[in-house]
Amino acid sequence: MSKRALISVSNKEGILQFAKELVTLGYEILSTGGTKSMLQDNNVPVTAVDEVTKFPEILDGRVKTLNPMIHGGLLGKFDDASHQAQMNEHGIEPIEIVCVNLYPFVETISKPNVTFDDAIENIDIGGPTMLRSAAKNHQYVTVIVDAADYAQVLEELKADGATTLATRRKLAAKVFRHTAAYDSYISNYLTEEDFPENLTLTYELKQSLRYGENPHQKAAFYQKRLGSDFSIAFAEQLHGKELSYNNIQDANAALQIVKEFEMPAAVAVKHMNPCGVGTGATIEEAFNKAYEADATSIFGGIIALNKEVDQATAEKLSGIFLEIIIAPSFTAEALEILTAKKNIRLMTIDFSQAKQDQFNVVSVEGGLLVQEPDRYGFSDATINVVTDREPTEEEWNALKLGWAVVKHVKSNAIVVTDSQMTLGVGAGQMNRVGAAKIAFEQAGEKAQGAALASDAFFPMSDTVEAAHAAGITAIIQPGGSIKDQDSIDKANEYGIAMVFTGVRHFKH
Amino acid sequence: MSKRALISVSNKEGILQFAKELVTLGYEILSTGGTKSMLQDNNVPVTAVDEVTKFPEILDGRVKTLNPMIHGGLLGKFDDASHQAQMNEHGIEPIEIVCVNLYPFVETISKPNVTFDDAIENIDIGGPTMLRSAAKNHQYVTVIVDAADYAQVLEELKADGATTLATRRKLAAKVFRHTAAYDSYISNYLTEEDFPENLTLTYELKQSLRYGENPHQKAAFYQKRLGSDFSIAFAEQLHGKELSYNNIQDANAALQIVKEFEMPAAVAVKHMNPCGVGTGATIEEAFNKAYEADATSIFGGIIALNKEVDQATAEKLSGIFLEIIIAPSFTAEALEILTAKKNIRLMTIDFSQAKQDQFNVVSVEGGLLVQEPDRYGFSDATINVVTDREPTEEEWNALKLGWAVVKHVKSNAIVVTDSQMTLGVGAGQMNRVGAAKIAFEQAGEKAQGAALASDAFFPMSDTVEAAHAAGITAIIQPGGSIKDQDSIDKANEYGIAMVFTGVRHFKH
Repeated sequence: MSKRALISVSNKEGILQFAKELVTLGYEILSTGGTKSMLQDNNVPVTAVDEVTKFPEILDGRVKTLNPMIHGGLLGKFDDASHQAQMNEHGIEPIEIVCVNLYPFVETISKPNVTFDDAIENIDIGGPTMLRSAAKNHQYVTVIVDAADYAQVLEELKADGATTLATRRKLAAKVFRHTAAYDSYISNYLTEEDFPENLTLTYELKQSLRYGENPHQKAAFYQKRLGSDFSIAFAEQLHGKELSYNNIQDANAALQIVKEFEMPAAVAVKHMNPCGVGTGATIEEAFNKAYEADATSIFGGIIALNKEVDQATAEKLSGIFLEIIIAPSFTAEALEILTAKKNIRLMTIDFSQAKQDQFNVVSVEGGLLVQEPDRYGFSDATINVVTDREPTEEEWNALKLGWAVVKHVKSNAIVVTDSQMTLGVGAGQMNRVGAAKIAFEQAGEKAQGAALASDAFFPMSDTVEAAHAAGITAIIQPGGSIKDQDSIDKANEYGIAMVFTGVRHFKH
Repeated sequence: MSKRALISVSNKEGILQFAKELVTLGYEILSTGGTKSMLQDNNVPVTAVDEVTKFPEILDGRVKTLNPMIHGGLLGKFDDASHQAQMNEHGIEPIEIVCVNLYPFVETISKPNVTFDDAIENIDIGGPTMLRSAAKNHQYVTVIVDAADYAQVLEELKADGATTLATRRKLAAKVFRHTAAYDSYISNYLTEEDFPENLTLTYELKQSLRYGENPHQKAAFYQKRLGSDFSIAFAEQLHGKELSYNNIQDANAALQIVKEFEMPAAVAVKHMNPCGVGTGATIEEAFNKAYEADATSIFGGIIALNKEVDQATAEKLSGIFLEIIIAPSFTAEALEILTAKKNIRLMTIDFSQAKQDQFNVVSVEGGLLVQEPDRYGFSDATINVVTDREPTEEEWNALKLGWAVVKHVKSNAIVVTDSQMTLGVGAGQMNRVGAAKIAFEQAGEKAQGAALASDAFFPMSDTVEAAHAAGITAIIQPGGSIKDQDSIDKANEYGIAMVFTGVRHFKH
């Protein structure tokens, strides 16, 4: 009696060759639907599944293989006498190989204008069931869900007449990864609640990493299939070695900041905080400002720019040690200059991409925090001038820039700006005045007439006092402290223009 | 012809009452195995599934319901003439209600000494298939995977003779959440690679949150079923309102730090950074030191202590505005003192819990970074005194404390310590000297004779110079810069004892 292989694939890549080789190896091929027709058209002998089940395909193909003649063949233990006796009694023959992939559910729901009925019709029932039966019984059955595995299976069959248990177990694990991901997509599509009782998230491996935040930590980078497309995961790398874990976090931070700006802007990031942000009439001017903002910390940093990098900018960039430059594009001249540097990475990303992640996640030990990203911009704030003096036009521009940047600085965060650039960035402090002091110290004399942005309200008036002492003349902050009036009184006393936004921007 | 409900549950909670009510409503109950016996023993009339399939249960129950007589009844469209004709032709009757839950795979693999065969046998095939068929066909079929939904289904059946489409769709979504989670657990159990091509992670809702890091961000807290048990998700809350998103992150950070210490220790956290860490012979002394470390930033902070909180410590704690206190336990006197404060949260956590998360995750836009947590402690470092002078015993103690803390401070991080407590914490800076300056400024005069810990190497000797100027006499850092010798020379020049660890502790 020949061995049997059941083949039913929606992705036909490589399947004809695989089936032919199995026939050569003495296998009887069982198949159904489009796979069966394709194999027959190519002169591969095929037994129809309904010949095995003695039951026709019904309900527009919804019920084909959900039959004990198939699943008995997949689930029976080949070396269990009682199983074998039952199989003989019912005329069930074992199926040694299963090669199945599933209706393209994700591809279907990714189409524009997909209907709900289309999505539902593309929920595969028979396929996952065959895969899961075969994977459960992988002690005996070889199950293939990925065309990339045809070669290894054939090689083992040719060499030893059978696959190894180790291979069958690996293939079974892959099946459950596949069905888990498949049902995760379906559940996310059907689920209307933001935070259901079970949350199952699925990702595809983008890149193995040499290590994580530190060399003793293993790590990898996964991408989201239906997530944001303005993502470092989808950036194109033009030059340089692959990104590290810390590079990816920094690049992600830099991209989110530079995306805030319509006008030419450049952002330098170190340890996930912006060390310099510059804007200007041209990208060269924007970069010059970002550099000038903190010419020390930019060393070894990551630069994101929101306009094409031209020759003049490239010359400036090439004069500094930088890890990564990301931009929408580089001119040929710019590329020539920058690719001369062996250790820099150059990446392009399409700034017109608009799909955004709905939620982001972060582990805590034993759990996961899930939240909407902080997407609020200046237009989402309820701008309210709370002091006697209104900001001047120059101050408004500086306040807007500061507000756009401070949202992306780790809390407690204070940013000092003029109308074109950051002058001081006080990041990640355990108290607010501490963050302000760092920003003032960095800004130095440039703080005279500059603006200050704070990610959260002032619990007392000490930050206004320190700001005045540093030379600040305009402040933007959420407001909302019970001691707001103290801060407003101080600001009025010093002639500072202060604006409340009603929106907080904590980030950790 | 009566309507039919198929019931097959491993969790029998509430099922008898549900089945009885369905019978009263005129349903014929189809069942199999243990559920069938239980219902029959309780005088509920039941039709055996094998009477419907005309096919016996075979292969030790591996094949029972995988049959077109069942799945035709689940997948046929009730209002499609062609479907109905085919069903009539084959004697297939519709099944209007499916109530199934699955073999307890997670419970099985959670048992100590579970065998691989046991795990495999607890992979349910027939159950998920019925659930998925019914959920796909939820336009017509009501599918229940959770006993909590019996009541609503009965209510709708009693009121209108049928469930609403909205309810059926919600139930179908729940099914796919359930099967996705189920296969995620199986895939994680079977997968040997750290970073497979598909990564599917599943969590259970622990708590809806009022909002995320900011009020305009929706958020929720999920827990890991097979993850760490030393987790804020598993802490018991004795007093106070529920934790916020930022509370959970801070509490998690505080717990990870205080877990570093065997001797009595107290940690105060703000914005995920330790603002004060103290140790001592008693927990009271430890807390006093943590408070003294930064009496300003502790305001509104989160305190974790690694020993029982006694009356004396509670009196100190109650004098400060704190968000949360977490400890292994509180004495009755301590509880009385602290519960008098309405706005404080008191939590206990079992410090003997040893299960740790294998990986943690964090979103980047469009992707996910996955890495091993940084579990390296002092004993994992290759301690190497690189200066002429060895640290004194007092300095060694201070260096060890600093090294334990700096690992948990956001990078770039510099921590100044004596042998009992932090004196200055420089966190989250874009350049290393900047972090050092913050720590020195906070330590002030106390930096005289103190130790300095740095999470990463010194790129040049400027930090050693600044340390000397501040009064530091001992330094611990990874080493590994091409300019290490400059730093060593400077340390020798100043009589500073410097120790290399060979281990970096970046954290972002």
